[in-house]
Amino acid sequence: MITPPSPLGDQLERIERARAARRRRYVLQDEWITLSHGSGGKASRNLLDGLLLPGLGGAPLDGFDDAAVLPIGAAPARLAFTTDSYVVSPLFFPGGDIGSLAVHGTINDLATAGARPLALSLGLILEEGLDVVVLRRIVESIRTASAAAGVPIVTGDTKVVNRGKADQVFINTAGVGVVPNGVSLSGALVQPGDRVLLSGPVGDHGIAVLLAREALEIEADIRSDSAPLHRLAAAVLEASPQTRCLKDPTRGGVASGLNEIAQHAGLASAVDEGRIPVRGDVRAACEILGLDPLHIANEGKLIAIVPAAHADAALDAMRSDALGTEAAIIGEVLESPPDMVLVRTEAGGSRVLDMLAGDPLPRIC
Amino acid sequence: MITPPSPLGDQLERIERARAARRRRYVLQDEWITLSHGSGGKASRNLLDGLLLPGLGGAPLDGFDDAAVLPIGAAPARLAFTTDSYVVSPLFFPGGDIGSLAVHGTINDLATAGARPLALSLGLILEEGLDVVVLRRIVESIRTASAAAGVPIVTGDTKVVNRGKADQVFINTAGVGVVPNGVSLSGALVQPGDRVLLSGPVGDHGIAVLLAREALEIEADIRSDSAPLHRLAAAVLEASPQTRCLKDPTRGGVASGLNEIAQHAGLASAVDEGRIPVRGDVRAACEILGLDPLHIANEGKLIAIVPAAHADAALDAMRSDALGTEAAIIGEVLESPPDMVLVRTEAGGSRVLDMLAGDPLPRIC
Repeated sequence: MITPPSPLGDQLERIERARAARRRRYVLQDEWITLSHGSGGKASRNLLDGLLLPGLGGAPLDGFDDAAVLPIGAAPARLAFTTDSYVVSPLFFPGGDIGSLAVHGTINDLATAGARPLALSLGLILEEGLDVVVLRRIVESIRTASAAAGVPIVTGDTKVVNRGKADQVFINTAGVGVVPNGVSLSGALVQPGDRVLLSGPVGDHGIAVLLAREALEIEADIRSDSAPLHRLAAAVLEASPQTRCLKDPTRGGVASGLNEIAQHAGLASAVDEGRIPVRGDVRAACEILGLDPLHIANEGKLIAIVPAAHADAALDAMRSDALGTEAAIIGEVLESPPDMVLVRTEAGGSRVLDMLAGDPLPRIC
Repeated sequence: MITPPSPLGDQLERIERARAARRRRYVLQDEWITLSHGSGGKASRNLLDGLLLPGLGGAPLDGFDDAAVLPIGAAPARLAFTTDSYVVSPLFFPGGDIGSLAVHGTINDLATAGARPLALSLGLILEEGLDVVVLRRIVESIRTASAAAGVPIVTGDTKVVNRGKADQVFINTAGVGVVPNGVSLSGALVQPGDRVLLSGPVGDHGIAVLLAREALEIEADIRSDSAPLHRLAAAVLEASPQTRCLKDPTRGGVASGLNEIAQHAGLASAVDEGRIPVRGDVRAACEILGLDPLHIANEGKLIAIVPAAHADAALDAMRSDALGTEAAIIGEVLESPPDMVLVRTEAGGSRVLDMLAGDPLPRIC
């Protein structure tokens, strides 16, 4: 370590002085976002210090620096690193909003890598004219979701674009996590005979957003399932250490998730339609809209491919978690036809479950 | 480690088969981006496998997974983690484009944390109707910049929003790096008497973008200075291991950078106007436009605060790097007035250098 250039007390005093000065000087008095909030000048500081940092739970010590520095314990370590942008429309929907979604979605990508999430970054793209009340509500939601998941936001950036050049707010979160020694998850590790587990009913998120966005005459109490899956994933890995891979079936739904795994493995999977949980309201809405629940996005569901011998243990682990009480073993991995997913219907037939073609549900996350 | 479920040869063969299948099956035949390219279904795969992954230099082995897993060597390690979104307008400008900028800008935030950059993420937000030729050109630029810097793109995400809801392309890059043991940089470590170094002439990037965007009748050959600063930063740290802090003066320019350091330290700094390099064309354009070059964004310049005793060594290190040949010692740190930056003019006077108020230069990065 470099020798501190002055006694520690002096340093801390100086840091405290600087932090106090910041708290004193920057407040956000504007009602709307303007281009100057993206300038890197005083208005940017007013936004950062007057809304974003306090809204996220207080300025970190290194709030002035451009990168966060995180200790990551014992080594050799493996780092999981992921990113997602969020452009969901509308910004607020039953069960969540763009802020909580941006926290959960990126945590879930770390969780499916088998990682313990360490921290998130937050990149905001704001449209000139955005109501500051809307921004405050989103930041509050980010803070709440981050705190509940125990995964802090440690670095961020804000840009503002001209009115009409964005749609209120776009959010990017990136995430870093540590992959425990011994954990290795990949579609390439999947074996014929493995079991396919699903943590709960599908389609809630996509249908909730669709109903919130479109003026559809469908009366239904459907809430997004948006939730952080890292604890559920850790429980599965503890119960079944030889788990082959985990996947959160977001855009494109369970159909895309299973097809990606099949293609990655060069194998097939077959799932039983009757064993895939779908809520009655979601099923009804899908029928009216001509959608397959298996193509609808989820934001709080986990697919796990585990060796057959450990399937029951993994299922018990899922069901012991509040996010997996309706978990089920929905199918198994087959040698062929390679790269394909089959659905066995309740009538006794079988059909190919393809990836979504086209996009009935744009801007779902 | 988990025992591989089959001999390694089998595994590799399966992986190869899956990769070959992917190369075979997904091509991008569309001329414009549509909402379905953001659906998570087949069109998304066509875009990913037919343009993005090959454009970035080939699919990583774990191209199907949602997070990259990176080994990070010996420990206990400290990780630097940063993010920036890029909304620059126009997308292409002399000396760079939104793609190279997104690579350089995030590398530079890692560099100023004293980190060795490890990897970047890439989050694309595309506007429906975007010409695929434009996207190819940007992806090619990202690939070239990433390869030249030696910092790979390891994970990514693509969203598409409706026509008129974005401005062609927005990019977010996050970055992770490893902070070597012994390196600790922060504005809070700055001491009275420290010297202020600047790696070269200021204002090139901001003026280049401004002239490319506005139909101004100014004839000037000004190119963005966009460049990756991690090697320059490492050279400074090697020459002056007790360097207090590094800063890349982007939005808000050298004025904002120095003010942030002063506020973080609770100290002052004074710089000599005559020692701050500004190219003639940039100075002339600033005079015509009524702008202060010290408020203009840079994308390839480094401010270093170093102990006085090591200032010459740090200066030599900067000048030995191709990106620092015009480096200069531009001033020093003072005890007071706290949180302020002073400019000593060539006429012998002195003025307060404040942060930019308002925003003459929106969407400069």
